[in-house]
Amino acid sequence: MTESDLSVVQLTPGRWGDPAHPVDLPQAAIDALQHLGVRRRSSASTTDGVDGVPAGADRVELTAGQLAFLTGVVGDEYVAVDAETRWAHTRGYSTTDLLRFRAGDTTDLPAAVVFPASHDEVQDLLSGCADHDLAVVPYSGGTSVVGGLAPARRFITVDLRRLDQLVAVDEVSRTATLQAGVRGPAAEALLAKRGYTLGHFPQSYEGASIGGYAAARSSGQSSAGYGRFDQMVVGLTLATPRGTLELGRAPMSAAGPDLRQLVLGSEGAFGIITSVVVRIRPRPTERHFEGWQFENFDAGLTAVRRLAQDGPLPTVLRLSDEVETAVNLADPDVLGGGSGGVLAIIGFDGPYNQATAALLTEAGGQNLGAGPGETWRLGRYRAPYLRDPLLDEGALVETLETAAFWSRIPELKSAVTSALTEALSATPPLVLCHVSHVYETGASLYFTVICAQADDPVEQWRTAKRAANQAIADAGGTITHHHGVGTDHRDAYVAEIGPLAVEALQAVKQTLDPVGVLNPGILLPPVND
Amino acid sequence: MTESDLSVVQLTPGRWGDPAHPVDLPQAAIDALQHLGVRRRSSASTTDGVDGVPAGADRVELTAGQLAFLTGVVGDEYVAVDAETRWAHTRGYSTTDLLRFRAGDTTDLPAAVVFPASHDEVQDLLSGCADHDLAVVPYSGGTSVVGGLAPARRFITVDLRRLDQLVAVDEVSRTATLQAGVRGPAAEALLAKRGYTLGHFPQSYEGASIGGYAAARSSGQSSAGYGRFDQMVVGLTLATPRGTLELGRAPMSAAGPDLRQLVLGSEGAFGIITSVVVRIRPRPTERHFEGWQFENFDAGLTAVRRLAQDGPLPTVLRLSDEVETAVNLADPDVLGGGSGGVLAIIGFDGPYNQATAALLTEAGGQNLGAGPGETWRLGRYRAPYLRDPLLDEGALVETLETAAFWSRIPELKSAVTSALTEALSATPPLVLCHVSHVYETGASLYFTVICAQADDPVEQWRTAKRAANQAIADAGGTITHHHGVGTDHRDAYVAEIGPLAVEALQAVKQTLDPVGVLNPGILLPPVND
Repeated sequence: MTESDLSVVQLTPGRWGDPAHPVDLPQAAIDALQHLGVRRRSSASTTDGVDGVPAGADRVELTAGQLAFLTGVVGDEYVAVDAETRWAHTRGYSTTDLLRFRAGDTTDLPAAVVFPASHDEVQDLLSGCADHDLAVVPYSGGTSVVGGLAPARRFITVDLRRLDQLVAVDEVSRTATLQAGVRGPAAEALLAKRGYTLGHFPQSYEGASIGGYAAARSSGQSSAGYGRFDQMVVGLTLATPRGTLELGRAPMSAAGPDLRQLVLGSEGAFGIITSVVVRIRPRPTERHFEGWQFENFDAGLTAVRRLAQDGPLPTVLRLSDEVETAVNLADPDVLGGGSGGVLAIIGFDGPYNQATAALLTEAGGQNLGAGPGETWRLGRYRAPYLRDPLLDEGALVETLETAAFWSRIPELKSAVTSALTEALSATPPLVLCHVSHVYETGASLYFTVICAQADDPVEQWRTAKRAANQAIADAGGTITHHHGVGTDHRDAYVAEIGPLAVEALQAVKQTLDPVGVLNPGILLPPVND
Repeated sequence: MTESDLSVVQLTPGRWGDPAHPVDLPQAAIDALQHLGVRRRSSASTTDGVDGVPAGADRVELTAGQLAFLTGVVGDEYVAVDAETRWAHTRGYSTTDLLRFRAGDTTDLPAAVVFPASHDEVQDLLSGCADHDLAVVPYSGGTSVVGGLAPARRFITVDLRRLDQLVAVDEVSRTATLQAGVRGPAAEALLAKRGYTLGHFPQSYEGASIGGYAAARSSGQSSAGYGRFDQMVVGLTLATPRGTLELGRAPMSAAGPDLRQLVLGSEGAFGIITSVVVRIRPRPTERHFEGWQFENFDAGLTAVRRLAQDGPLPTVLRLSDEVETAVNLADPDVLGGGSGGVLAIIGFDGPYNQATAALLTEAGGQNLGAGPGETWRLGRYRAPYLRDPLLDEGALVETLETAAFWSRIPELKSAVTSALTEALSATPPLVLCHVSHVYETGASLYFTVICAQADDPVEQWRTAKRAANQAIADAGGTITHHHGVGTDHRDAYVAEIGPLAVEALQAVKQTLDPVGVLNPGILLPPVND
């Protein structure tokens, strides 16, 4: 890749945000970590692995024939075999990924990174990869937190960032055709020029892109108003080793199973989504955010459930539990005002809705005004930036999430909290929880765990996660509401849907990807396992 | 089957409604038919085929081993091999079905009808059918209008009407678990006792049942307020020849593809849905229906699109075109008041919404008051009852439907109307059209065709339908918005999704139903075709 192309295909740094401008932890947070027994650890405090590229990452792993095939499809300048590009495409952004990145662990290093510019180039890559014995990992934003970029065998990465176009806007139908490599802010900027918004704001918004949103069933912070990404998609184009699928001739159809919903969530195992047709909405001319306080989580839960079931729903609806409320309020930069109880954030794209406020008041809520809402809004994408400095301080911090029907939510929350607390009893954790996505029949639960790092923090987290996964399964939750399956959740996913459903999905994969070049071992166990 | 059991498993008569109480056509309608050249035809006017059972329907077609297997699973009294029961389970309710029924055509006659009482009995039937060389047609309401009950080879029918229980209501999550054989009115009655409604009112409401709603992606007249049936389903249980699938642990999940959406619309090709978990809502304490007049269809279309995109949507939203408006207004019993232009019907479950009315007024609508709305409400399930007397009069009447994104709707409507008019030019038809299901990004179009019967009305309609199907494909619509695929739409469906997607679905079918006992040839072409 030439110097000039680096500006076209800007590299993802090995940590969230710009390494030249690291985010500092507030002193109050550092002080609080002391109470958890968190101490700076020599193994955790190095960032050498981030800036430098570990030895071994520069050995050439492609045959001349493989290289010729790749350059033949995308051109010389868009096949990168240099160590820096490959290292920057190694794994995603889970805490375990970050820890292994820091440790200079070069397993999961792609043999090459290719940057196709069009659907046809992606299709040509997939059509030829089987013949050239190349496994493929699709890469759009690279923000997986579930091991979605670490397949079971040697592979090349297909980075989709050059598929960055807003292809069409249908103003009558209110749909937009967006290519897979358009990142969240770019999508909003492109649509804003036409007066529209997608309304999809996941915490990974600044890094993730359209293809990943679709492939992993992303859900954003405005999901109460705009829905999940899989609810926005009305059409998609999928390149597979066997050819291209074009799906979606109408918003809804009775023409058989909804094949869009078979591709959404397939995490690159069936093909590479190269573009989607998504529902868009006019950009709001005003926005309102505010905080509400409830006596306790149960009272807040009843209130948000009533909003979800009887409406009117705001655009943003989020309810922290007692622990998360206390931790956030301890840092006046994050959430100011109020004390005790639990904090809910509501937001409106468009006019403030008094009926929503009236229902919250009737449900026992106390309006804290715009202050906490605006503070939340300003910090809404901040959490990923804090993980690196937290690791630097010697803290282990990770998140996990689930969803269930409303009647199971209290038991599910309690079971997961207990499982995490017990599994991490050697380094007593803080377990924070919030509800951030609601439906008429249920909701998601999002947990944040903070504790001191043990000697082997990767294994420390794996043990805790296994316990949480089992608690989720036993309490009737789904293993993931919006993070996806990847490799980290694969066993739990197989247990959740059962062996017959896994076989059915493997049959789909074998049809579309007979040799198994796509994301081997991600989402589904390899057929011959 | 014993006499007493006939009350348990009440038979479906061979025409819609109770043959002892036929519905008469209004004289105005009979007069209007004269203008289309409709004349009573000897071949069409006989109802002998309906009441009598044609010769040949009473020959035994099961081996002693097959019969022993079936009675072993469900008990002697729930295996019917008598001619009357089998004839009553022959085909569905398309006009072609009715014409062949009248002609005493005994192809598609099931070899036996079995009435299992539980999921386990359904599972045992499916587990054993391959060994006993029995193909299976699931039957819940028997109201298919797309050949959904006419498989490619000899079969037994599994009638699910004894699976008629409301198994559970979760009032916190607002979900209900309903067995597949519960018919629409029974589901509403069972839920009403608990204060809830499903809100699903398709035109087949009085005949169709829960399993069919799910298997064929039914959409009801209140879809603007309650959504389609496939949007109400949050969980389901599927019996397959390979075992049982239990799907749906949360309203939404990022755990892989949405397998519920793979089973919904699978029309019995993958398994038999034995129960569903559906979202329910509190029963409304008031309802309002009213008529609105627009200058022409285009103006009305813009108005309903604005409601779908900017809201607030009513519960019922339906817009007739000029021809449908004129035909309905010609019969003062069906729709009274107003003249010229086009008629929209809106309905609210709950309080009347002034904001909806304000938007309609702003869009050029004129409020005709409750009269036309109430008239529509009273006649809303009437159309299926009229088809038999229309056939008796010598008219050919049939419906078809499609959906597309909003920007394509005008061209799609015009293309389908032209195709039907041209294909039926020997018997000039009336082509009526309405929009009855709307989404943010698009809508459905529902066509009714009335003309004089030709000498071979079955072939006459087939020709017309082929032309309409081609017009739908060319204009970018889906082959069906809510009628399903069955056998009638299979070729068009295959063309719509393409050979690779068909292969993927066939791979799912082969996994779940390796011998191909389930609904052979329905939805999907047999693998070896």
